Amino acid sequence: MSEVYASRRTRLRERCNASGSATALISRPANVRYLAGAAPRGAVLLLGRREDLLVCADPPDDRPNEGRPDETLRVHSLRRSGGDPAVAAVDLLVGEGGDSLAVEEHHLTVARHRALRSVAPGLRLADLGGAVEQLRVVKDEEEISCLRIGAEIADQALGELLESILVGRTERHLALELERRLVDHGADGPAFATSVATGPNSGRRGHRPTDRRVEEGDFLSVCLGASYRGYRCEIGRTFVIGTSPADWQIELYDLVFAAQRAGREALAPGAAFRDVDRAARHILDSAGHSEGLHALTGHGVGLEIEEDPQLSPAAMGKLDACVPVTVEPGVHLPGRGGVRIDDTLVVRPEADGGPELLTITTKELLAL
Amino acid sequence: MSEVYASRRTRLRERCNASGSATALISRPANVRYLAGAAPRGAVLLLGRREDLLVCADPPDDRPNEGRPDETLRVHSLRRSGGDPAVAAVDLLVGEGGDSLAVEEHHLTVARHRALRSVAPGLRLADLGGAVEQLRVVKDEEEISCLRIGAEIADQALGELLESILVGRTERHLALELERRLVDHGADGPAFATSVATGPNSGRRGHRPTDRRVEEGDFLSVCLGASYRGYRCEIGRTFVIGTSPADWQIELYDLVFAAQRAGREALAPGAAFRDVDRAARHILDSAGHSEGLHALTGHGVGLEIEEDPQLSPAAMGKLDACVPVTVEPGVHLPGRGGVRIDDTLVVRPEADGGPELLTITTKELLAL
Repeated sequence: MSEVYASRRTRLRERCNASGSATALISRPANVRYLAGAAPRGAVLLLGRREDLLVCADPPDDRPNEGRPDETLRVHSLRRSGGDPAVAAVDLLVGEGGDSLAVEEHHLTVARHRALRSVAPGLRLADLGGAVEQLRVVKDEEEISCLRIGAEIADQALGELLESILVGRTERHLALELERRLVDHGADGPAFATSVATGPNSGRRGHRPTDRRVEEGDFLSVCLGASYRGYRCEIGRTFVIGTSPADWQIELYDLVFAAQRAGREALAPGAAFRDVDRAARHILDSAGHSEGLHALTGHGVGLEIEEDPQLSPAAMGKLDACVPVTVEPGVHLPGRGGVRIDDTLVVRPEADGGPELLTITTKELLAL
Repeated sequence: MSEVYASRRTRLRERCNASGSATALISRPANVRYLAGAAPRGAVLLLGRREDLLVCADPPDDRPNEGRPDETLRVHSLRRSGGDPAVAAVDLLVGEGGDSLAVEEHHLTVARHRALRSVAPGLRLADLGGAVEQLRVVKDEEEISCLRIGAEIADQALGELLESILVGRTERHLALELERRLVDHGADGPAFATSVATGPNSGRRGHRPTDRRVEEGDFLSVCLGASYRGYRCEIGRTFVIGTSPADWQIELYDLVFAAQRAGREALAPGAAFRDVDRAARHILDSAGHSEGLHALTGHGVGLEIEEDPQLSPAAMGKLDACVPVTVEPGVHLPGRGGVRIDDTLVVRPEADGGPELLTITTKELLAL
């Protein structure tokens, strides 16, 4: 496992060298974790002139859910001296004779960047841009395994909930119940704030659970995910409460199901991000639902629940094998409710059977 | 209630004018919420040349727990056009003829700051610094009321847990149970990740709950808080599991209790931050526990669980009446465990009875 982190750092160095920077400072926590095995609070990773160094505010705790620093990586802890690990890292670099440094300008604040320039006025600071985010897009089989386990955990938690009584319970209680079950089944924790939306709230993307109680006849839409060894994935399903869905509910569900299936079926190595988005969006647009559609049909997952690539109309780029993404179109009719269906899949070659579905809870419309 | 937000914005404008900037852009979410009543995702608040404007990525949802935008404030939503609300705000300002703008350099990334300069090359960007954080330090009675209710909720959740069976349950389950009870009793949610630490983990600051089970003879330390209308406070208590604490446990508990009491008793209008810290720290130092003590004895609370002021050895400044702070010293003996006692109090004049204790769960050492 140690070689994984060292080899990721090597690949990043190669990129940096190609761009003209021999050294880099990584500060975004997910990026630090990707390259170093762990990201203790405030830690930065310095790819220095001769060696790599993890600079932390405090000595890393033993927090299994948070990963452990790569054993081949030198760790420097500021302890009581306090201060910004980024400033300390730059100070060490200058001591090594470094004259340029690529930093993550999409993460460092103006104030921190100025502090770096103060401590090293002769150091030329360049922008690393999204180099680490790009490295993170294609996952190795170990990462995919973590996502697969996380998806299984989410499937189990959801499955158990569906066997329990739902009518009369509040969105909030159901959300808390789901999160408890995620932890029971081995998750580090929820991947994000669990969403439970019933009645007129159903189908709303990112709905925060309220005290509304589930009622007969409601659509109930649920979106949850597990974090497992830092890797996060998500599943979203919509159900009907009671014995017989209304005609408008069946019609809307079939539509969103068709859109989501079209999105899934568009996933393949070489498929353009925007084409996957269009496959799903087109079906909803054609049925008159273009207003209020979300900007994205889906997105990558990994150490962050939302990462590159974005499956959206203006996105540039194409999928590769071993890229995990969500496909999550939905329609919300204000005042009535709606449907959202969300899977996490891994792009695989057609010859290997097409995209690997991680979230296997049925997508058939269940009446509960 | 609307006047509250407008008058906060007026006070901020007065500060800005005094520093030479007629206009300001607020981007830190807690600061936006403080001045605008709500901080929808990505929203920025522009104090423009003639009026104030809240610029959001999407139209604000009705999310009661997240606050509602001040009705007197104009709201501009980017909807489908997307992009960075900060850039859109600057664009509008330039249209108004603005030539200078104070921004939060401790929040804006280098990349976003550069984008602002691109869209408005003639605009002089200055640093607002911590002006809003400073305004937030002294709370009005409405804010203190929210903290008081939040503390009561946390007291209730903790009290209920203490009546239940603890031996054999994992730290994680107890933490999840506490968080469920916080929501049951009316909290928006937990103020921060609930900490439950048993046996050798007890007394560790910021301990993330593990699968370790509570055992007879353990110290059990718990730290939790409620968020109520956006306001967050915390309580921390340490208990002994079983009928008779060991001598070392009684001794350590008495020591930390004495340190925490000294910290509480030092709270008064005009007291220096560092003197409050020293009152508590001195007692622990004198008993030989200077190694491994945390950098802070306590900190302010409000819309963020950790805000100004810091009660630490090097902190500059003095307390005022109506400033809520925590006092939370502790000792952790690696491999054995420890004690942490944490209250939230509001600084009040001596004539009014001294500091108002919000977290009233007993601090007597309970054997559970």
